[in-house]
Amino acid sequence: MKSSGGRYYEDFRVGQVFRHASPRTVTDGDVAFYRALTGSRFALQSSDDFARAVGHPVAPIDDFLVFNVVFAQSVPDVGLNAVANLGYAGCRFLSPVYPGETISAVTEVIGLRDTGGRTGVVYLRTTGHKEGGVEVIDFARWQTVRKTEEGVPPFSEQLVPPLPAAVPADALGSHLPVLDLSAWDSGLSGSRFRWGDYELGERIDHLDGILIDEGSTMLAARFFGNPARQHPLPFSDERSRGRWLVPGGLVMAIGRALSFNGLSNAVHVAALNAGRYVAPVFTGSTIHAWSTIVGKELIDGRDDLGALRVRLVGTRDQPAADFPDRDDAGAYLPSVVLDLDLWLLMPR
Amino acid sequence: MKSSGGRYYEDFRVGQVFRHASPRTVTDGDVAFYRALTGSRFALQSSDDFARAVGHPVAPIDDFLVFNVVFAQSVPDVGLNAVANLGYAGCRFLSPVYPGETISAVTEVIGLRDTGGRTGVVYLRTTGHKEGGVEVIDFARWQTVRKTEEGVPPFSEQLVPPLPAAVPADALGSHLPVLDLSAWDSGLSGSRFRWGDYELGERIDHLDGILIDEGSTMLAARFFGNPARQHPLPFSDERSRGRWLVPGGLVMAIGRALSFNGLSNAVHVAALNAGRYVAPVFTGSTIHAWSTIVGKELIDGRDDLGALRVRLVGTRDQPAADFPDRDDAGAYLPSVVLDLDLWLLMPR
Amino acid sequence: MKSSGGRYYEDFRVGQVFRHASPRTVTDGDVAFYRALTGSRFALQSSDDFARAVGHPVAPIDDFLVFNVVFAQSVPDVGLNAVANLGYAGCRFLSPVYPGETISAVTEVIGLRDTGGRTGVVYLRTTGHKEGGVEVIDFARWQTVRKTEEGVPPFSEQLVPPLPAAVPADALGSHLPVLDLSAWDSGLSGSRFRWGDYELGERIDHLDGILIDEGSTMLAARFFGNPARQHPLPFSDERSRGRWLVPGGLVMAIGRALSFNGLSNAVHVAALNAGRYVAPVFTGSTIHAWSTIVGKELIDGRDDLGALRVRLVGTRDQPAADFPDRDDAGAYLPSVVLDLDLWLLMPR
Repeated sequence: MKSSGGRYYEDFRVGQVFRHASPRTVTDGDVAFYRALTGSRFALQSSDDFARAVGHPVAPIDDFLVFNVVFAQSVPDVGLNAVANLGYAGCRFLSPVYPGETISAVTEVIGLRDTGGRTGVVYLRTTGHKEGGVEVIDFARWQTVRKTEEGVPPFSEQLVPPLPAAVPADALGSHLPVLDLSAWDSGLSGSRFRWGDYELGERIDHLDGILIDEGSTMLAARFFGNPARQHPLPFSDERSRGRWLVPGGLVMAIGRALSFNGLSNAVHVAALNAGRYVAPVFTGSTIHAWSTIVGKELIDGRDDLGALRVRLVGTRDQPAADFPDRDDAGAYLPSVVLDLDLWLLMPR
Repeated sequence: MKSSGGRYYEDFRVGQVFRHASPRTVTDGDVAFYRALTGSRFALQSSDDFARAVGHPVAPIDDFLVFNVVFAQSVPDVGLNAVANLGYAGCRFLSPVYPGETISAVTEVIGLRDTGGRTGVVYLRTTGHKEGGVEVIDFARWQTVRKTEEGVPPFSEQLVPPLPAAVPADALGSHLPVLDLSAWDSGLSGSRFRWGDYELGERIDHLDGILIDEGSTMLAARFFGNPARQHPLPFSDERSRGRWLVPGGLVMAIGRALSFNGLSNAVHVAALNAGRYVAPVFTGSTIHAWSTIVGKELIDGRDDLGALRVRLVGTRDQPAADFPDRDDAGAYLPSVVLDLDLWLLMPR
Repeated sequence: MKSSGGRYYEDFRVGQVFRHASPRTVTDGDVAFYRALTGSRFALQSSDDFARAVGHPVAPIDDFLVFNVVFAQSVPDVGLNAVANLGYAGCRFLSPVYPGETISAVTEVIGLRDTGGRTGVVYLRTTGHKEGGVEVIDFARWQTVRKTEEGVPPFSEQLVPPLPAAVPADALGSHLPVLDLSAWDSGLSGSRFRWGDYELGERIDHLDGILIDEGSTMLAARFFGNPARQHPLPFSDERSRGRWLVPGGLVMAIGRALSFNGLSNAVHVAALNAGRYVAPVFTGSTIHAWSTIVGKELIDGRDDLGALRVRLVGTRDQPAADFPDRDDAGAYLPSVVLDLDLWLLMPR
């Protein structure tokens, strides 16, 4: 058979490596359309002049666009029969990507867990590269994947891989050019608050909201390159009431874009320590977001940047003024859809 | 507080100056998506070859894209609590912008008028720049802005600034390269009608219509960079019937794009003497447009271009064949949504 | 009258030639948005690195984007009053187009047939060019065009032109750079199957589906440059049930993009021998596609590429697993919307 409907749980083996198809040159065109999808307004990623002044050759590509491009490249090989993404771990952004550079990706199966019934859990590590084999991102994820039929015996050894709780702060941003902070214009960046101005435990309501319509959802799925099997179809879940499922990668990118209002100077995402789509988002929902500072670290050998560990929480149809989170029993409130644990880099 | 919900009426003082955040390099990607939003087909802005032949280095960015980018940059500082844009005056396009150039913007408060109750009127002048501080646009606008609560005393002096009724014709287009009219190809530009062919009082039905859907509306708001507070939310006005409010800047851009059919050679907008969103436009409406020639001027020292003063009227869900306008009492007909007074430049 | 509502049947004469307005420089921005519309994932068109490795200077523009740009340029002159496109014939892709090149177009009236009543059929041949007059595409089409009123006498001679049943295989791809097959990376291209692996009569279910929403439909019509008269309006046909008509060119482009899954190495469209929109597609429909191999030819003097003649069938709201086609009486099944006869070029 020359077309592929994707692999099922029993097709995976620990140690398998997939080189993915459809490498992609990321361009100014991608930057423009990503802005239309997310409304991102970070000066470093929006202005070549700003970027050059502080030490980049031109404006770098938004980190979550790189994430989405690499993720999508992996889907035909490992994700077509995934029911749900259960989480991300140890995601590191390893090199900036600039317009005109070409991204390709590889995924290794790092774990398998048969949960009985019609699905199993597949653990994967995906790495994105640009020219010369330079790594730009790597991340682990685990996802529920369908079996061809119920009761398929576990064809493979079982292995739940160790996953890091967080990326160590000491190596964050080692790939970034040293920024010329004397050229850092707080008027243009959108905020005078730098690394030293944030306190552990501080919470920030990002205030704005972004409504996700059907058109943006369909265009985003195709734009990222995610083959059109799950997302474009009306979600059959009764919660959807005929609306469509929004790709998780778009929700994450929108959460990041919303964080501009309060974290304007957090110009690089260095790591996604952990991330989870807590609940599905359907078209017609408005996404809000809030953050809390859960860590602060200096970085060895860097006077220009400090690292902020930020928990970024996204909600649907619920402004974030009250910082919606978990209830007393530890369960997420119904409005919470996104929970990210990020290392952000910010000028000192 | 590190995030900003924007300024209220009582936060403004005459003479305040805001340098806006989020400078933006305008690219071929922006040109492509702007075309998708508006359907603009002017040859000078669409074809590098056409532009080079007549004297530009490459195709310039559409004037109303420049307008929307600059306008959006001002919103976080001066527009988040605006209820309505009441009008524009004295908008001049001062230099062409080409792909790769970076636009930033500054706004000065030029007037304040307390209207009692929960809102006041703020008068603003916004200027956009590119590299070297070259001005590309400036315009005045006034808008109704919320107070934090009713009855807030007027914290500032009152001043209704003088605003020009029109931009003088003599300096229009002084920044433009002299066009080589021998290379002006009327087949490619879409019309044989030049400046001399239009008569005072002449009316033109632009015939076409553009339906504004929800996806285009949401994408446009984010693409222009307008923080997502008012536009993405269903408009609570009873007139909206659950539909969403279309950003005025998109309606204006579409009106301009529609004017191609009848004004194909009006390749530069030199000034917006005055402009008004007469009524809100909701998603699902089809925009039509008509124009009337209200002025014709030669420009000192320019043999290549003449200036046409054009009133461009946009309607919703009403073709423009009957030139919908005001009723006998001077009130706009319900279908009228846009009323622009423009200086357009056209080859002689 | 300075604006144009387009020509009616009686305005056409055999031999008329129209040089179209609005030449367009195709850019990286167009490539990005075309991807958002179609989800196309062919490596050669997505990656500059892949393209350079095999012999192109950079990634070429997708052939069906070129088709849509050229088609749209012709509409203001010959298509504003078309009721339906009846078919395409003899469409040849004559030269690759790269970002930064400018496309213009010319159409000749090659036939007329008065069918009585309110419409007639107009036969057209459209040719697209880039710099230096290099032809990039030409194709014939015929369409039903309205008369100004019923019973208008046939103003012109009648002529049903001869149209080729297929483009001869011997000259296909003569304009393409010779590909360096040693650099052809089957991992990146998405398939190990090359020209020699496909058999006459083989059928391929392309498996994926693409849902066409309202936003994508409106944006596509404006993006391609098709003046907004028919497509943005809700289709008055009772079959539409309030939904909007999807431009045929978008359906064709999506069909091609879907064919990636099964024909990943079919990197160039050399010809559209014949093509037909079998039934209208309305927003909210999901497009699926299947192909069958109807011809295989070697190409004189080319060791790198072979030609596959492929019939590509698109369906709406009906997966292609059963290869929906015609019924026993020869009539298309209701789910069939697209029937294309293509010459595709594939590495040997």
